[in-house]
Amino acid sequence: MSIYQKIQEEAYRANMQLPQLGLVLFTFGNVSVADRENNVFAIKPSGVPYEHLLPEKMVIVDFDGHIIEGKLNPSSDTKTHAVLYKHWGKIGAIVHTHSTYATAWAQSLRDIPIYGTTHADHNTVDIPCAAPMSDEMIQGNYEYETGFQIMNCFKEKGLSYEEVEMMVVGNHAPFTWGKNGDKAVYNAAVLEQVAKMAWLTEQINPDVRKLKDALIKKHYERKHGPGSYYGQ
Amino acid sequence: MSIYQKIQEEAYRANMQLPQLGLVLFTFGNVSVADRENNVFAIKPSGVPYEHLLPEKMVIVDFDGHIIEGKLNPSSDTKTHAVLYKHWGKIGAIVHTHSTYATAWAQSLRDIPIYGTTHADHNTVDIPCAAPMSDEMIQGNYEYETGFQIMNCFKEKGLSYEEVEMMVVGNHAPFTWGKNGDKAVYNAAVLEQVAKMAWLTEQINPDVRKLKDALIKKHYERKHGPGSYYGQ
Amino acid sequence: MSIYQKIQEEAYRANMQLPQLGLVLFTFGNVSVADRENNVFAIKPSGVPYEHLLPEKMVIVDFDGHIIEGKLNPSSDTKTHAVLYKHWGKIGAIVHTHSTYATAWAQSLRDIPIYGTTHADHNTVDIPCAAPMSDEMIQGNYEYETGFQIMNCFKEKGLSYEEVEMMVVGNHAPFTWGKNGDKAVYNAAVLEQVAKMAWLTEQINPDVRKLKDALIKKHYERKHGPGSYYGQ
Amino acid sequence: MSIYQKIQEEAYRANMQLPQLGLVLFTFGNVSVADRENNVFAIKPSGVPYEHLLPEKMVIVDFDGHIIEGKLNPSSDTKTHAVLYKHWGKIGAIVHTHSTYATAWAQSLRDIPIYGTTHADHNTVDIPCAAPMSDEMIQGNYEYETGFQIMNCFKEKGLSYEEVEMMVVGNHAPFTWGKNGDKAVYNAAVLEQVAKMAWLTEQINPDVRKLKDALIKKHYERKHGPGSYYGQ
Repeated sequence: MSIYQKIQEEAYRANMQLPQLGLVLFTFGNVSVADRENNVFAIKPSGVPYEHLLPEKMVIVDFDGHIIEGKLNPSSDTKTHAVLYKHWGKIGAIVHTHSTYATAWAQSLRDIPIYGTTHADHNTVDIPCAAPMSDEMIQGNYEYETGFQIMNCFKEKGLSYEEVEMMVVGNHAPFTWGKNGDKAVYNAAVLEQVAKMAWLTEQINPDVRKLKDALIKKHYERKHGPGSYYGQ
Repeated sequence: MSIYQKIQEEAYRANMQLPQLGLVLFTFGNVSVADRENNVFAIKPSGVPYEHLLPEKMVIVDFDGHIIEGKLNPSSDTKTHAVLYKHWGKIGAIVHTHSTYATAWAQSLRDIPIYGTTHADHNTVDIPCAAPMSDEMIQGNYEYETGFQIMNCFKEKGLSYEEVEMMVVGNHAPFTWGKNGDKAVYNAAVLEQVAKMAWLTEQINPDVRKLKDALIKKHYERKHGPGSYYGQ
Repeated sequence: MSIYQKIQEEAYRANMQLPQLGLVLFTFGNVSVADRENNVFAIKPSGVPYEHLLPEKMVIVDFDGHIIEGKLNPSSDTKTHAVLYKHWGKIGAIVHTHSTYATAWAQSLRDIPIYGTTHADHNTVDIPCAAPMSDEMIQGNYEYETGFQIMNCFKEKGLSYEEVEMMVVGNHAPFTWGKNGDKAVYNAAVLEQVAKMAWLTEQINPDVRKLKDALIKKHYERKHGPGSYYGQ
Repeated sequence: MSIYQKIQEEAYRANMQLPQLGLVLFTFGNVSVADRENNVFAIKPSGVPYEHLLPEKMVIVDFDGHIIEGKLNPSSDTKTHAVLYKHWGKIGAIVHTHSTYATAWAQSLRDIPIYGTTHADHNTVDIPCAAPMSDEMIQGNYEYETGFQIMNCFKEKGLSYEEVEMMVVGNHAPFTWGKNGDKAVYNAAVLEQVAKMAWLTEQINPDVRKLKDALIKKHYERKHGPGSYYGQ
């Protein structure tokens, strides 16, 4: 039995939620869960159908992207996960999908505007879309650079990864994260729903304006921060 | 066993219909059911996943928003329910969701126009969208003021809550009600379907006009009022 | 046991297909099946949820709309069915739904243009949209007049009900028919799919043109007429 | 037991995936699987509902379209399959569906533009839309000519069927292929998803531009070719 069994099981359960939530076609997605004491994470093996997954098939990788344990190849996006764990020290899990509506916004190269309280319950800002990478970054260590592109996007826009736990990579697809596997997957589903409703909102009213500040602040603080009163 | 067991069970059954009808993601919705003799209502506890709900977990609250019985925190929207029960004396149940299409109309700040008989079977008017609240109302007793915003919207538009049992709060999401839990949930599903079809109608024909009066009157009266002949 | 058991069972089975095919919300639809020897049809009782239906609950009605057998009220649309059976002598079954995409076209008051072979496999013409009725017809014997509005639409457009087995009533919703319950329900599902694809086609290419005649003829004749070679 | 049992079973399993993946309504689709040693393929019988299919019902046909074994009529599209097997020597299986979004692009007579990495993971070019056939071809040996129209489209656009395994026939619907039944069905589902996301992308950003070359190359090579590193 692996000493990493705990994160393998958490990563397994989180990965299995993706098809249940309708967020993946075939194997177009992956979840990893970190063990911050040992500086490693458990991630889905590459190209393995969800119905063949098992906790012990989760690959253990360190924060530099080296395989520590496991017979299978890890997700081809492993280096992106590694970079984010290494530099964003409070992330416990990461989700990458090609979910339909969030990916359409990524392909459109647009931030997802904040149009309603469903969005504001989770973020006080537009959900950021990172610009496509330079040709040099793409031709170099691509997945590694994707991690830096995500971090640069947050730096340029002045965002905190602890407050904004979701984004889309331009021309590519969404990434979300959180304190654990359940929260990161929750964020992936919220992002997909917010993306769908933002698209519909613009279809219904092309002149729609963003949510006003007072409403953004109120809804975010209902669920987050010292005075929050949502949940148990 | 609680003396409020009857409304707890009705509220439980009504809440459980929301995920079955595809009206909620995670815990983004809640139903309450009133006991008009005791001036209390049973409402979903805040943030509890539907699969963990039980009738005895429904929180009992009075019409001023005070918790009467229950160990869990009630829905964060509880005060909105309380205000509506207090002032609209014939409502037996209230539903709040963030269902996709109705919420998109709310975010668009538009009333949902009456384009067909499916709409007219349930309402003779456009489904109203309440304007967003003033910053003062938002920063004050927000959920309490949301209830007043809904009532003010009906007052300004000259609508009766007994005839029009559904609406959307601008920038936020839909509220529906009815004589009991089943009817209020039914209205939430009808609103979502009417919202989807109104969006599609405008996509197919941007110059579409509203339903004419004779057809509105005929369809509404088929289902409601003294000469109605729908159902058993 | 009723002497109409055979059509009751066929009508029951056909009605139960509507929710399975995603064509109805709640009770927004009904199927009837005719017995041409006895000049009666079996139709869904009004407002009864599909999960409570039973073959023996189907109401037997004659072609003038009089109830012949059954304890429940028949569908509120019964007179529309009766008129069509009376005047269109070769129809064996009728379906009425408020299915999402077909109803959106009805609300848009537009015929559904023939854009592809899926459409041409079933019809050689645009799927007709009947104009809304005059106020006098609406205020008079509404459901009875709906049947005449459908027939007048076919007469004006020079269509044969034996060739075109589907249409939408403007501002209202679709009607389909066929030689038996299965075929009429099949047509309701085909209409919904064709309606969805026609909407998407115009979204993708606003300048799209209709299918050319040679392709319409070829595809229709593959499935219909003397030289057809589809199926067993 | 047929000497073609192996391809009958593979074709059966592949056909049964179409309804599971939501790619067909009723019998609007078919899969064939080739036996390259015997120059025959197994194909779905025409018009037989999926729930009545059995491996032994798959019809065996040679590459000129002659039935070799089987009591049922083969799919009405059989000659299209035969032509493609005959001229494209490395295809192991073919899928034809009328899946919603891919068919809408076919009806729009537009190639599906390459907007993101989901597309580039599978193709380096826009997914081609073959022009509608001439009236002579349609009135002649229609299904046979459809095969040639597909091949001509690839020839004119300079595409290789070994690299691009999916396309849509203008005004008609999609065809996909692959080394075996699973891969051809996989391609049909990928095409549908890419088609849906391309439509949404243009809705969200009408001025969207195609993916840049470096990103196309990178993503395609991650999954294909000598340096690929996706999967096990």
